[in-house]
Amino acid sequence: MPLVQVSWWKGAGTDQRRQLVEEVTETVARIAKCPEAAVTVIVNDVETDHWGRGGTLASEL
Amino acid sequence: MPLVQVSWWKGAGTDQRRQLVEEVTETVARIAKCPEAAVTVIVNDVETDHWGRGGTLASEL
Amino acid sequence: MPLVQVSWWKGAGTDQRRQLVEEVTETVARIAKCPEAAVTVIVNDVETDHWGRGGTLASEL
Amino acid sequence: MPLVQVSWWKGAGTDQRRQLVEEVTETVARIAKCPEAAVTVIVNDVETDHWGRGGTLASEL
Amino acid sequence: MPLVQVSWWKGAGTDQRRQLVEEVTETVARIAKCPEAAVTVIVNDVETDHWGRGGTLASEL
Amino acid sequence: MPLVQVSWWKGAGTDQRRQLVEEVTETVARIAKCPEAAVTVIVNDVETDHWGRGGTLASEL
Repeated sequence: MPLVQVSWWKGAGTDQRRQLVEEVTETVARIAKCPEAAVTVIVNDVETDHWGRGGTLASEL
Repeated sequence: MPLVQVSWWKGAGTDQRRQLVEEVTETVARIAKCPEAAVTVIVNDVETDHWGRGGTLASEL
Repeated sequence: MPLVQVSWWKGAGTDQRRQLVEEVTETVARIAKCPEAAVTVIVNDVETDHWGRGGTLASEL
Repeated sequence: MPLVQVSWWKGAGTDQRRQLVEEVTETVARIAKCPEAAVTVIVNDVETDHWGRGGTLASEL
Repeated sequence: MPLVQVSWWKGAGTDQRRQLVEEVTETVARIAKCPEAAVTVIVNDVETDHWGRGGTLASEL
Repeated sequence: MPLVQVSWWKGAGTDQRRQLVEEVTETVARIAKCPEAAVTVIVNDVETDHWGRGGTLASEL
């Protein structure tokens, strides 16, 4: 049942998301001692002009 | 005041979202014993290649 | 696969949460045209002194 | 370390987001007594036909 | 309608949360050009042993 | 900058959370090609009577 929500800057391609989902699922299932089938991962690509860090938009860093 | 955030696979049209908002609002307001006007529903369409289940992207299931 | 996250003011008991989960699951599965088994609902009880509305803590409304 | 996630109706431009990030970061850092560099703000633009209020899509209010 | 969700380390008292809600609501309403009454702020206190930064629990930094 | 939010059933101890944070941070940083210092992980323990699956509270499965 673990639910993993990843927010990161837009730019990753399908290969990176596939790898992320595979590896994070393996890790979380092992540590949570649950079947991998029970793990959900949702990836949220955020535009850098929608992400602020230290008061500045990431697109302007 | 209840806040309902629904994440599902992209694909639903406006009619489905309208029905979702209507019915979920009615249900939640009745159970929370609050006015329907106090309920917010936010619908988050997620691309299937951004959703992992059991370690696999939903687009590749 | 739909994921429903409900945030509301703390105070509901198990009976209300059970009813919420049952009814919201039925509604969402019907509208999303997916099996009920695929629906996850997470209920987040928020203390009223952690919830602001119109600039005021709900505990002080 | 504070994390601020803002969901609002789509429509704001970069200037509004920049101002939001600047001012919210200043406010939160001051109240949390942490450096501004530690504050993350993520802005989530939601289409009005994905936002329900009182059982009605915001696009149809 | 803006919804602001703030996650930070547990430790703030009611006075800090009240101030956070007041000031963030004022800022967001002004920038979004909406009434303050339309702004919701939810504060999520996270224990430092549930928050990781750079691979380390914040409680062990 | 990646932000990882993990929701799972309450029950894990500090050792499991430490391991989760370490391993997920390593994985995400490697795939996102960013420094580990830029990764935040927030762990949300959910009581099983606040988690619904297939219309049933997890505490009653």
